Amino acid sequence: MVPRPPKIPKRNITPVAKPAAIKHDTEKDSTVRFVALGGLEEIGRNMMFFEYKDEILIIDMGLQFPEEETPGIDYIIPNTTYLEERKEKIKGVIITHGHYDHIGALPHLMGKLGNPVIYATSITKEIILKRQDDFPNMPKLVFQFIKGGETHKISENFSATFFDVIHNIPEGVGIIIHTPIGNIVHPGEFKFDYDHDGKPKGMDSWKWVGEQNVHTLLLDSTASEVPGFSLSERVVEAELEKLFKAAEGRILVGTFASLLDRLGEIIKIAEKLGRKVAISGLSMKTNIQITQNLGYLKIQKGTIVPLEDIGKYHDNKLLLLCTGAQGEPKGSFMRIANGEHRHIKIKSTDTVVLSSSIVPGNERSVQTLKDNLARQGATIYHYKMLDIHSSGHAPQEELKIVMKLVKPKHFLPIHGYYFMRWRNAKLAQEALGLEPKNTILADNGVVVEFKKDSARLTDEQVPAYYVMVDGLGVGDVGEIVLRDRRTLAQEGMVVIITSLNRETGRILKNPDIISRGFIYLKENQDMLDEIRRKIRGIIGRIPRYQNVDADYVKTLIRDQIGQFLYNKTKRRPMILPVIIEI
Amino acid sequence: MVPRPPKIPKRNITPVAKPAAIKHDTEKDSTVRFVALGGLEEIGRNMMFFEYKDEILIIDMGLQFPEEETPGIDYIIPNTTYLEERKEKIKGVIITHGHYDHIGALPHLMGKLGNPVIYATSITKEIILKRQDDFPNMPKLVFQFIKGGETHKISENFSATFFDVIHNIPEGVGIIIHTPIGNIVHPGEFKFDYDHDGKPKGMDSWKWVGEQNVHTLLLDSTASEVPGFSLSERVVEAELEKLFKAAEGRILVGTFASLLDRLGEIIKIAEKLGRKVAISGLSMKTNIQITQNLGYLKIQKGTIVPLEDIGKYHDNKLLLLCTGAQGEPKGSFMRIANGEHRHIKIKSTDTVVLSSSIVPGNERSVQTLKDNLARQGATIYHYKMLDIHSSGHAPQEELKIVMKLVKPKHFLPIHGYYFMRWRNAKLAQEALGLEPKNTILADNGVVVEFKKDSARLTDEQVPAYYVMVDGLGVGDVGEIVLRDRRTLAQEGMVVIITSLNRETGRILKNPDIISRGFIYLKENQDMLDEIRRKIRGIIGRIPRYQNVDADYVKTLIRDQIGQFLYNKTKRRPMILPVIIEI
Repeated sequence: MVPRPPKIPKRNITPVAKPAAIKHDTEKDSTVRFVALGGLEEIGRNMMFFEYKDEILIIDMGLQFPEEETPGIDYIIPNTTYLEERKEKIKGVIITHGHYDHIGALPHLMGKLGNPVIYATSITKEIILKRQDDFPNMPKLVFQFIKGGETHKISENFSATFFDVIHNIPEGVGIIIHTPIGNIVHPGEFKFDYDHDGKPKGMDSWKWVGEQNVHTLLLDSTASEVPGFSLSERVVEAELEKLFKAAEGRILVGTFASLLDRLGEIIKIAEKLGRKVAISGLSMKTNIQITQNLGYLKIQKGTIVPLEDIGKYHDNKLLLLCTGAQGEPKGSFMRIANGEHRHIKIKSTDTVVLSSSIVPGNERSVQTLKDNLARQGATIYHYKMLDIHSSGHAPQEELKIVMKLVKPKHFLPIHGYYFMRWRNAKLAQEALGLEPKNTILADNGVVVEFKKDSARLTDEQVPAYYVMVDGLGVGDVGEIVLRDRRTLAQEGMVVIITSLNRETGRILKNPDIISRGFIYLKENQDMLDEIRRKIRGIIGRIPRYQNVDADYVKTLIRDQIGQFLYNKTKRRPMILPVIIEI
Repeated sequence: MVPRPPKIPKRNITPVAKPAAIKHDTEKDSTVRFVALGGLEEIGRNMMFFEYKDEILIIDMGLQFPEEETPGIDYIIPNTTYLEERKEKIKGVIITHGHYDHIGALPHLMGKLGNPVIYATSITKEIILKRQDDFPNMPKLVFQFIKGGETHKISENFSATFFDVIHNIPEGVGIIIHTPIGNIVHPGEFKFDYDHDGKPKGMDSWKWVGEQNVHTLLLDSTASEVPGFSLSERVVEAELEKLFKAAEGRILVGTFASLLDRLGEIIKIAEKLGRKVAISGLSMKTNIQITQNLGYLKIQKGTIVPLEDIGKYHDNKLLLLCTGAQGEPKGSFMRIANGEHRHIKIKSTDTVVLSSSIVPGNERSVQTLKDNLARQGATIYHYKMLDIHSSGHAPQEELKIVMKLVKPKHFLPIHGYYFMRWRNAKLAQEALGLEPKNTILADNGVVVEFKKDSARLTDEQVPAYYVMVDGLGVGDVGEIVLRDRRTLAQEGMVVIITSLNRETGRILKNPDIISRGFIYLKENQDMLDEIRRKIRGIIGRIPRYQNVDADYVKTLIRDQIGQFLYNKTKRRPMILPVIIEI
């Protein structure tokens, strides 16, 4: 039994008005081309476009966080080679919502793409602009405000009707893209919102979409392997409130800074329980500010207190909202756990609530975070122990309901690895009785052709491989650099510098050897001596007064020293021979 | 409803006979010391010892698989500095079961520890000996066979009574360690085994243990955060059989090679359904051989067929058992998925069943595996979709039942990260009403003192930090090498070689610059030129004909070029300056 009346975040889920009649091209062979530049072989880097004659409409421009295979880079953005060559055709960019995997590549790409108009809701616009501050040299962005229920004519042949969807950030939209071959629906990212009785809300909206004679439904596959329905945010709220009520000391809550709805819920509960809220983490502070400015979050005066003032309040009157619940090394929580936070030291009466899931790959750092906080005596609750987190992505049953309400003739799963999209396609085959040929599994860069009565993969492929952002560089870290980083991480390297007399071809001094990440050579003098002896041998076998072919000598050194070290250690460090001729 | 009678693996869960009366030391202040050298701050590397006067008894000698923080190494073994200095005191090593996190360090450590007697069950012995083959220079191991129900006198003051436990490998044992201060129970690793009606089996054994007046219970914490009971292997078997029956083409099953019980179950079902079994993967083949030799697995003649003969059978008469379900690059499954397997190419009629969980850290490679198999048309089932895997570790409710049956006076959670052990301690406080001071959270290396009426942490600490095995090297990869590997992976490196005239201190030739993992310098000629210009500047400012302080010049180069590259790229590659004086 949920102990209090529901707090439904205020949002417009108005059934949208019927859009202005769109004149569909009736040429028999009209073809709309569709390409995803990211998001079909990963989670993230979402970007796709529709192309018809001289018009291109882009949807989303997101980034992807680095992977084990891409060490050291900051993030990955979509490859827009194809679009850059056709930038005069781009008529607009629709952004479905304000998460980084949908907006993160804008600062890097908008200049290259001729700075087309961005269609976004007000909060999405604010989040985009906030991030733009970090990129002062980027062009001034041009926005067209959109709202659920509105239809916008984007170009001669494309227009879009927006409808509100629930994600975990306010003002997410779905889109009906009106094209010359029919209506294509992209619901953005969404889950169902449930009322206090567990009934899903906003179903009228989906029903209305289903009346629009939908040619193709594009559908998020992130949770297509998850059975059942979303955990209701009402349950999450109730569970959080129960935990907060039971806490006797301070409450420290960690969640994603991008989970704006959750942050709002937490602040509301804090107010209800008479706790002040202090925020540690810039991204969280900024996001709460934006939500507040736009009226999504009504915070009472005096609820938010500066972090440096928390000493003024009783522990049981405080709730601290902190970033870094994924165990990020620079996040607030890791600094707190390591005793490096300026204002927050863990007390044994603290209750720590991690109201977020663990992003795959972060398991180990979250474990370290929990271990270190627990060692200092905090009582910790995380999402596997209690219902204190709900994902933003519709699981199987919700996906199937949407499929059945929207009734598309073709289905194209988006957002997710192949297996997730395959699973989503299976769901559509089951729910709608679609034939496999009408459930399209496109990879990044593959051109899909939509005609009036068909949707099919072509053999055409546009560039869609990774563009990596590392520091100030965009695209300058390529496969060679990454391969070297992976080798260096696994095996380390040995630099061998041999100085030769240019005329005699004889060694001028004892070869210099530097290694890093291999073994600690200082403690392996024998090995160093033997390498030097081998180098002298290699050089000694070259006839005197002959032109030294440096490349040939380097190859000899690389092969022979490499083999020697492998025999000695069963490791293959990168061998970098340098020949200095003087 | 499970559709067939239960197949209970044949095992002795005989209530153990009362051990020969053990004379307990009655000196008032007798102290047994206990130290875990691994397994208390990680999953794996399990090894602990008890020490009393001149006697040491070791339990387990396992390895730990590498982590993100230990790139490139093969595995980590316990630090045995303390024991090496006292090797004449070591009276025996008890091995609880044959998994690598319990036996993997034996080949590296037994020689250093004076090759003490190993107490092991027959299958555990066989697995140890099999692995020993790869280490021909190790001493010949001396075994003492043990069986559940037996009591062995190990030394003057230590003896041990063994009892059978169910894990997911046959012949796991728990131990009652009879010491001068009382009985300490170490149940090894275990879960409950359920009969066809869902009733747990072997409870008598635990009850008998509880009658032994237990001083301290050491208890596995791996699943202490998992609520409820184990998924019954009977359910897993039934679910697998259902899947196998429905498969129309070949069946490819992936699981851990160490999951011997599961492998046996799968082969039994294959026989029942008239399918031949071919095995891809040496470790799996060996383990099945061992289990078969010892009579744990009765395989009908003709069931196992060579992999090269699979072409001779109809697809619906074949089941292929394959290693690499974690997406290991060299495992059978990844080779199959990549089209590199000699005998197995995926067909669209294949059913792939991954009957194992995903080890944290392997999520991404398992995703790639599933994607690649699905792309080739296989139908895939994994443990999140169906009940086709059950963990080997007792979850909360089973842990609590054991606690209540064993009724220890003190509780010391083992095997797991701090938070897991903390959770286990909480369970013991709840289940047994123990005071927190009697639930001991010891870290690796911390000496615990057991006296007749107490158990307490001391301030004494023995060395327990990582010993890394990399290729042929044991312990030669230390923190410095790892730190360098991590830096190289993140930022790459730049080697700058400056040749100076020893007398004049002037530059002899244009500095050589090599970089790896930074940016592709060949495409950044401007940057190269500017680095060289800066080097000339640095050298040019040193007065001529002065002794060059190479270290000082190197520091200048490192700082100034490092800063220059950071300003240009916002990256901090490792700068390695070399000065060659000629």
